[in-house]
Amino acid sequence: MTAHASVDGIMARLTGMVGERATRAPGVLDGHGRSEAYHAPRPPDVVVFPDDADEVRRIVRLCAETGMPIVPFGAGTSLEGNAAALDGGLCLDMTRMNRVLALNAEDMDVRVQPGITRKQLNAQLRDTGLFFPIDPGADASIGGMASTRASGTMAVRYGTMKDNVLALEVVLADGRIIRTARRARKSSAGYDLTRLFVGAEGTLGVITEVTLKLHPQPEAIFSAVCAFPDLKAAVDTAIGVIQSGIPVARIELLDAMMMRGVNAFAKLGHREAPTLFFEFHGSPAGVAEQAGLAQAVAADQGGLGFTWATTPEERSRLWQARDNTLYAGLGLRPGARAMVTDVCVPISRLTECLSLTARDIEESRLIAPVVGHVGDGNFHLLILIDPADAEEIARAKAFHGRLVERALALEGTCTGEHGIGVGKIDFLEQELGEAVDAMRAIKQALDPHNIMNPGKIFRQHAGEGGSRR
Amino acid sequence: MTAHASVDGIMARLTGMVGERATRAPGVLDGHGRSEAYHAPRPPDVVVFPDDADEVRRIVRLCAETGMPIVPFGAGTSLEGNAAALDGGLCLDMTRMNRVLALNAEDMDVRVQPGITRKQLNAQLRDTGLFFPIDPGADASIGGMASTRASGTMAVRYGTMKDNVLALEVVLADGRIIRTARRARKSSAGYDLTRLFVGAEGTLGVITEVTLKLHPQPEAIFSAVCAFPDLKAAVDTAIGVIQSGIPVARIELLDAMMMRGVNAFAKLGHREAPTLFFEFHGSPAGVAEQAGLAQAVAADQGGLGFTWATTPEERSRLWQARDNTLYAGLGLRPGARAMVTDVCVPISRLTECLSLTARDIEESRLIAPVVGHVGDGNFHLLILIDPADAEEIARAKAFHGRLVERALALEGTCTGEHGIGVGKIDFLEQELGEAVDAMRAIKQALDPHNIMNPGKIFRQHAGEGGSRR
Repeated sequence: MTAHASVDGIMARLTGMVGERATRAPGVLDGHGRSEAYHAPRPPDVVVFPDDADEVRRIVRLCAETGMPIVPFGAGTSLEGNAAALDGGLCLDMTRMNRVLALNAEDMDVRVQPGITRKQLNAQLRDTGLFFPIDPGADASIGGMASTRASGTMAVRYGTMKDNVLALEVVLADGRIIRTARRARKSSAGYDLTRLFVGAEGTLGVITEVTLKLHPQPEAIFSAVCAFPDLKAAVDTAIGVIQSGIPVARIELLDAMMMRGVNAFAKLGHREAPTLFFEFHGSPAGVAEQAGLAQAVAADQGGLGFTWATTPEERSRLWQARDNTLYAGLGLRPGARAMVTDVCVPISRLTECLSLTARDIEESRLIAPVVGHVGDGNFHLLILIDPADAEEIARAKAFHGRLVERALALEGTCTGEHGIGVGKIDFLEQELGEAVDAMRAIKQALDPHNIMNPGKIFRQHAGEGGSRR
Repeated sequence: MTAHASVDGIMARLTGMVGERATRAPGVLDGHGRSEAYHAPRPPDVVVFPDDADEVRRIVRLCAETGMPIVPFGAGTSLEGNAAALDGGLCLDMTRMNRVLALNAEDMDVRVQPGITRKQLNAQLRDTGLFFPIDPGADASIGGMASTRASGTMAVRYGTMKDNVLALEVVLADGRIIRTARRARKSSAGYDLTRLFVGAEGTLGVITEVTLKLHPQPEAIFSAVCAFPDLKAAVDTAIGVIQSGIPVARIELLDAMMMRGVNAFAKLGHREAPTLFFEFHGSPAGVAEQAGLAQAVAADQGGLGFTWATTPEERSRLWQARDNTLYAGLGLRPGARAMVTDVCVPISRLTECLSLTARDIEESRLIAPVVGHVGDGNFHLLILIDPADAEEIARAKAFHGRLVERALALEGTCTGEHGIGVGKIDFLEQELGEAVDAMRAIKQALDPHNIMNPGKIFRQHAGEGGSRR
C-alpha cells in the first residue's frame, strides 16, 4: 500500500520533472481506473503523461527508489483489468508519446512510440501503399496491443502482435533502457526478449518504442456476409475454409443474438441468423479465386448466399458493424456491463466447444451473444450482467469457469488475445501449472521489487491475493 | 571443470538408469565433440541416449545434484559450436527420441519428440496433404532447429522456427517438466515461454517435445533459376520481388563462385554467374501469376532468363544443389574448413552490405563464396580456411568482425539463423548491449547453477572466458 504522505513527496518530485503533466486531479485518476469491462474501478494515486523515453526512465527510477507501483496505460480498451491500479501507485499515460519515429517503406517496417493508436498509425500510412493489419476492434494503442499480445479479426491471415513486432525499446524496473532486437527481419541473436515483453502486460518493463512489420495494402479486397441456418453450419464452413488453405484475411462469426444487436446499433438490416463475415485480400484474380472457393464451402454447408460489399464505403460500413460488437452487445441490455470471455481452442474442437457452451448459456439463464475469430478457434461471449445483481455476477463467473475448463479439456487456452490481467489469474494456473513458476522466476529476476504493474498475470508469491489493498 | 573421479561415479549411476545407453566410448565422445564448422572439437565426458522425457528428467536431476554440465545434441549440424562441450560434461543425444506423438491433420499441427529430423518428419507427413516447411539445408533435428531459432530457404514465406512452434515440453534445470503452451493457434496466457526457449540454444532447459504448425502441401509448385550479369542486379531483383508483395516461397542467391562449386559438386551445367533460385507455391493460377510478376522484375534488372524445373525430379535436383552449398563450397578448396558467417540486414541495405563485403573479401585475400536467403536480407559467406594456417584464420576472423560491424551499422544482426553458440559471444554484446544483462538475469533465474549448456550465447559473469577448461 502506498501511504499518502509518500505520495505527496513523490508528487512534488514529479512536478519538478514534468510540471503539470503529473496530476492528482480526481477526474483524471478516476478516468484511469476504469476499463471497458465489468471489473470494479481501481484508480491510481497519480497520473503522469510522459513525453519521451528519458522521462519514463527518470519516473521509473523515482518509483524504484520509493517502491511505488507503475501501471502503464494506453487507450484504456483492455478487458481484463490489465491496467487497473490494484495497489494504487503511478499510472504512466503514454498517449502523448504517439509519434511515428521512422518509416522504412522499402523494408515495410515502422518505428513508433507506444501511445499511437492503430487508427492513427494507419491514417499516417495511407499514402505509402502499406498498412498495419492487426485489428482488435477497439482503437487500442500499439503499446497496449503489444503488451496484451493482441490479435483480432485479421490474425488468421497476418498473425498476432507476436508476429508483427520486430523490436522494442523497454525501460526496465531499474531504469535501464534496452533494445530487444535490431531491425533485421529475423535474428537468432540470443533470447527472444521481444517476444518476452510482448504479452507481459507491463509487468516486466515499460515499452517506450515499438518497431512493427507492415504489409502491402492489398491490390483488391472483397468483403461479404453469409447467413447460415444454424451455428454448426457456420462454424463448419469456417473450419472448411481454413482447412482448404484459402488465405482468407478475415472470417468472423456472429450468432443470431449478436446480429440482432448489430442491426439495432448500426441500423442495418442483416438477417438475424448465425453469420460469417468474410474478407479476401490479394490480386484481383487471386481474390476472385479465394472468394469462389469459400462460396463453394459455404454452399456445401447450406449457407444462405453471399452478400457482397463492393465499394470501400459498403466495406467500411460492414466492418464497422463488426468492430462495434462490444457496444452493439451492450445495447441488447441497457445498463448492463459485459464480462467478456476469450477462450481459444484447436479449430477441430470448435464446434464441440461452441455447442456445449450454447447449452450451458441456456441452462445458466445468461444473456451472452457470441462473436468469434473462428479462423483461429477463438471466440468471445459478451455475458451481459447487471452490475448490481451479485447473484447474477456469481452465476456468470461460475459459467466462465466451466467454459475455461471445457476449453482446457479441448487443448485450448483461457485467453486467445485479451491477456490474463487480474480476471484470469486462477485460470492461468489451471492452464499451465508449474510453467507459471518459471514466469514468476523471470519476473523476480527482472523486477525484484515488484513495482511493474503488480498483481497482474500471476500472484508473485503463492497464496497471495490479487491485490494488497 | 569436471573431475574424472566424479565422472566415474556419475557414470555408474547413469548405467544403473539407462544401461548401455550411457557411454564413454572414445569414438562416441569424439563424434559428439565435432561440428560441421571450423571450431576445434570439444568432446563431452559421457554421452547418454535417453528414450523419453522421464529419463531426461532423471538425468538432469543427477547433473543438478553433481554440478555436471548438460549439452543437448541433435543431428550435430549446428555451425557455431552450439553443442560443443566446452567444460566437458554430459551430452544428451536426443536421436532415439524421434517419434511423431500426435498428428492433428484437421488442425494442421503435429507433436513430435525433439530428435526427429525434418526429413524424417516430412517423410511421415507425405500422405497427409501437409508438410513442415522450415528447411535450413542440413537435415537437422527439430529440437536443434527450435533451439537455434533456425529458418532457411522457406522462411521468406513460412516464417522461422519462432513462427512455427506452437508449444514445447521442457525439462528445467531443477528437473521439473513444464509445458509452455496449449495447442490453440494463439494465446495471451502469460509470458511467451515458448518463444523464450526457441533460440535459447539449450541454455535454459532441455526440450523433450515440440508441437509444430504444419502447412498444406501446395497444389502447384514452380521452381526456376535465373542468372544475372552482376550481383547487384540479382539482389535488386530479390528486393523488387519482396517489395511487390509477391508471396514467393523461396528466393535464394548464389554468387558466381558458389555456382562454380555447385556445378562441380552436383555435376550440373548452370551458368557460373550470380544466380537466383526461385520457388512459387499456390494454386496453378496463383503460381503462374506470381512467376509472371517475378519474371518481369528480373527482366527489368537485366536477368538472363528463367530456366524452369517442371517435374518433381528436376525440382528436387535443383534444390538439392542449393541444399548442398556447404559441401559444394568446401569442394572449392579441398582440405579447407568453413567459417560460416550469418549476418542479416533490412532488405533495403542488402545491396550496400553485399557490395562493401565483396570488396573486403578481395582486399582480405579470402576465398568466400556467397549463398543467401536474400528475401529476408540474410546471407552466408563460407570463408574457406586452411585449419593449419593460423595467419589465415586470424585474417578471416578480422574480416568477420568487420562484416558484423558493417551489418550492425546497417541496423542488422550478427546472426539471422545460426545462433550465437560460442563463436559470436562478443558480437552479441556489440549488437544488444545491456539487453544481454537481461538475458543473464533470466538464465540466472532459471538455471542458477549454470549447468545447462554453459558458456553459450553469453558469458554468465562479466570478464569470464568462453570456457573454463
